Amino acid sequence: MKTHGSGELNRMIYLLSKLPGLGPRSSLRMALQLFKQRDSLMRPLAKAISEAAEAVVACDVCGNLDSANPCQICSNESRQITTICVVKEVGDVWALERSGVYKGYYHVLGGLLSALDGISPEDLRCEDLIKRASNPDVSEVILAMDATIDGQTTAHYLSDALSGSNVKISRLARGMPVGGELEYLDDGTIAQALNARASL
Amino acid sequence: MKTHGSGELNRMIYLLSKLPGLGPRSSLRMALQLFKQRDSLMRPLAKAISEAAEAVVACDVCGNLDSANPCQICSNESRQITTICVVKEVGDVWALERSGVYKGYYHVLGGLLSALDGISPEDLRCEDLIKRASNPDVSEVILAMDATIDGQTTAHYLSDALSGSNVKISRLARGMPVGGELEYLDDGTIAQALNARASL
Repeated sequence: MKTHGSGELNRMIYLLSKLPGLGPRSSLRMALQLFKQRDSLMRPLAKAISEAAEAVVACDVCGNLDSANPCQICSNESRQITTICVVKEVGDVWALERSGVYKGYYHVLGGLLSALDGISPEDLRCEDLIKRASNPDVSEVILAMDATIDGQTTAHYLSDALSGSNVKISRLARGMPVGGELEYLDDGTIAQALNARASL
Repeated sequence: MKTHGSGELNRMIYLLSKLPGLGPRSSLRMALQLFKQRDSLMRPLAKAISEAAEAVVACDVCGNLDSANPCQICSNESRQITTICVVKEVGDVWALERSGVYKGYYHVLGGLLSALDGISPEDLRCEDLIKRASNPDVSEVILAMDATIDGQTTAHYLSDALSGSNVKISRLARGMPVGGELEYLDDGTIAQALNARASL
């Protein structure tokens, strides 16, 4: 979307419009807001993005993003060494950490197996996981993949691949989400919630 | 929203979440996307924001944002010197330029009069406008303010303030927007569209 402004302006707006969830119009609005807060937001943001681009790397152990390598989670020795939770992406690590319930370590696959997108086990960090799971200290691997076709395909593959290791393999429970209303749940969720019902 | 990551990471996510239309969750998603496109998006974006912050200034004549001062519009001598279009914000200049219909010059007020927000004529670029309108080359001032209470208050004020100058004062037409359906128009718009009906 043209602004009839200068090269610098158009280039910034063009790059902003490439961010997820932003389009040509919202990137214009964002640009105007940045100019209104040049010192309090615009310059600090440019600096923060640039510094993060240099400092933040994927952890060699788990794949989490951090400026420390190994990351703060992997280098925290007070966590439970017995458990590895396998997730699709870094955002999933952050989501699980926010819940505050899980105290073990993580393993970020970097995606899900997908025949459609041509993603095979070699494209993901599956080998590393199998290596980590063979550590005698590890007794459980939680496959915390999305409850989607690709997520479950990946979980099945990993479950097979890990069957040689001497670890318990588990997955997240299926059922009603907290705050969920029965009327609006899909059939698959209702079926799983009924089948896995708990006695009171 | 915590990421349990490093200072650089959290700082970038915090600043991203301050952008208009972004919240804690969308800024996390945006951060992950940035790390995925470190060379193609993240570093160029940081550079573009930083360069724009230094290069882009408000035009001394009209208030438009550009790295040239006077801006490209004000320094374009092929435009109609007879007309000044008064708008609230820089984004309005861009919107009018996109329509490609207007060929005169602009004047950005930098806001609208508002008793509620305590914005008085001294806070806007009203004096500059009156000075520009007194130029004998200028024959028409178009008050292209929003069709809101504040927009119309501002237009009334400027219309009064400009009554001493020897210029025609006009406003944008009211009526059905292109593509608008009668059923969904508000009463005010229908009334204006009926009163200002055009003969075929």
